[in-house]
Amino acid sequence: MGDITTIIRESDEGCYDREMMYTILDEALICHVAFSHGDQPFNVPMTFARLDDDLFIHASTKSRIFNELSKGINACVSITLLDGIVFAKSAYSHSMNFRSVMMFGSMTPVTEKEEKLRIGEALVEKMRRGRWKDCRKPSDKELSVTGFLKLKIDKFSSKIRTGPPEDIEEDKELPFWSGVVPYTLRMGEPVEETYGFKSIQTPDYIKKK
Amino acid sequence: MGDITTIIRESDEGCYDREMMYTILDEALICHVAFSHGDQPFNVPMTFARLDDDLFIHASTKSRIFNELSKGINACVSITLLDGIVFAKSAYSHSMNFRSVMMFGSMTPVTEKEEKLRIGEALVEKMRRGRWKDCRKPSDKELSVTGFLKLKIDKFSSKIRTGPPEDIEEDKELPFWSGVVPYTLRMGEPVEETYGFKSIQTPDYIKKK
Repeated sequence: MGDITTIIRESDEGCYDREMMYTILDEALICHVAFSHGDQPFNVPMTFARLDDDLFIHASTKSRIFNELSKGINACVSITLLDGIVFAKSAYSHSMNFRSVMMFGSMTPVTEKEEKLRIGEALVEKMRRGRWKDCRKPSDKELSVTGFLKLKIDKFSSKIRTGPPEDIEEDKELPFWSGVVPYTLRMGEPVEETYGFKSIQTPDYIKKK
Repeated sequence: MGDITTIIRESDEGCYDREMMYTILDEALICHVAFSHGDQPFNVPMTFARLDDDLFIHASTKSRIFNELSKGINACVSITLLDGIVFAKSAYSHSMNFRSVMMFGSMTPVTEKEEKLRIGEALVEKMRRGRWKDCRKPSDKELSVTGFLKLKIDKFSSKIRTGPPEDIEEDKELPFWSGVVPYTLRMGEPVEETYGFKSIQTPDYIKKK
């Protein structure tokens, strides 16, 4: 099967550049974590944060995913950003524009309190830069029931498709509209939850841009 | 470990309703397909289509994913729609609003030409209803190099979080903004590719709504 990170299909879309991959990781809000129990794969959507060359996820210490991954089994974490639908002249050449990353490796549970706090901060700051100062920090009890896992980012590949459709020559003059419909994840108007207490001035980092 | 579809953590967010799940499948444009080769999981982003109670994916007949899954090994297909970031008063209660589905099972390669065409139509129609009539249909050669795989949707679970943050009582009066920032995948302005030939009138199903 070759090296697991070798991109076999449409290898012109493949990319192994770490800085480029990190822009994808830093833009994405969720990842999908795959692991197997026996011969049954599981594939769990999760939040994550990157700090330097490490990826962190968190889950309840009672969860299946935390307990399975803590054993050091292999995992594959994938992150995909959809950028557009590609409408070609032929059905066969229809495609998606996307940026994706697959990371391989086994995860290590994080045990030190200071490190857990550093990861907690990264997870909150990923939601909005500046948020960590504006929330109650985790208590010892909260930290103790939260399992943090680290994946060292060293085996990875990235796959990116951009640009217009690519029809074969014979199809290019067919009388069908072809092109790209771009897609972006856009934020809507923030909805405050006051719990019946005084409304709080919306911080700049929350406001709709 | 119990039944694989049993939602253990935050089981109040769990859902086993097929119709509800299908609204998630029909809205989503991509899925992540997890499978293992030996003890190494892979997790591949793919397009997909649902027809009745079957999920279909496609890949090159030369691809690793098609060849591995054709052997009938177990897979887990996950689909996640992100609906918002949940900012709570405490770091610990920060969360995401999302709708997700996990489907388990082994896949079957589709061999009949008529069935392949039916799936090809579903894949194109998922991009935009009405598109199939506006493209060149797959040739026999194109169909022969495309591997189609069917997953019968019978083992699945769905997990959904909606609504405001849920802080504990002691946190609710803290002087931090809390609430939800909604997110939606929005289409942008379509970009035509004419290949240097005559521009084609943009069909209604492509136009920005």
